[in-house]
Amino acid sequence: MSKKTVFNDLKLNEKGLIPAIIQDYSTKDVLMLAYMNVESIKKTLKDRKTWFYSRSRDKFWLKGETSGNIQAVREIYLDCDNDTLLVKVDQKGSGACHTGDWSCFFKNVDLESGRFNDEDHS
Amino acid sequence: MSKKTVFNDLKLNEKGLIPAIIQDYSTKDVLMLAYMNVESIKKTLKDRKTWFYSRSRDKFWLKGETSGNIQAVREIYLDCDNDTLLVKVDQKGSGACHTGDWSCFFKNVDLESGRFNDEDHS
Repeated sequence: MSKKTVFNDLKLNEKGLIPAIIQDYSTKDVLMLAYMNVESIKKTLKDRKTWFYSRSRDKFWLKGETSGNIQAVREIYLDCDNDTLLVKVDQKGSGACHTGDWSCFFKNVDLESGRFNDEDHS
Repeated sequence: MSKKTVFNDLKLNEKGLIPAIIQDYSTKDVLMLAYMNVESIKKTLKDRKTWFYSRSRDKFWLKGETSGNIQAVREIYLDCDNDTLLVKVDQKGSGACHTGDWSCFFKNVDLESGRFNDEDHS
């Protein structure tokens, strides 16, 4: 194991945040993207559940705290240039999206026209 | 098909950019995260290859232009709150990372200690 921790390498943006891609461990579906800071990464490591930081609300939030749709952390990766996290989780409940969808990425863009395909309730 | 295009809904950040998660279409591996602006999304739709925008270099870049590791676009999704793109691609060549790795997410964080696991050459 390396002597360096994720906190040694981490490059935060000018707001002190790093984007975290959340991927379901078993289906490999990309579920959402949210932002963490140093403290929310620590809370995520400690609890093995995803904690994010909302700058607009100036607060930490535990994903699924109200909905019950908790994300149990399986693996965490930092990317090659240290400015993005990939967090692999077991998504609990109905899914990650506040709309009730499994994934936040349901608005499918038609490559020809740039329009949304209707079946994705966009 | 909806009357709205991706450009109607898109929420750019204060730099005029939107993060784009790049996922390999067949393996579902998350490969990288990079940033697009309106013009690079247009170029991506037109060419069916990923075009990004680098603010630090103030230029557009076609992924794989020098390495040959082009990303052929299969599907594009905008997330529920319109501030992140998910682009599913056929990754060509050896992979997405400038290190030669398939994915930019190879630095695995030990959940107990926060240290990097050595096998991931971090």
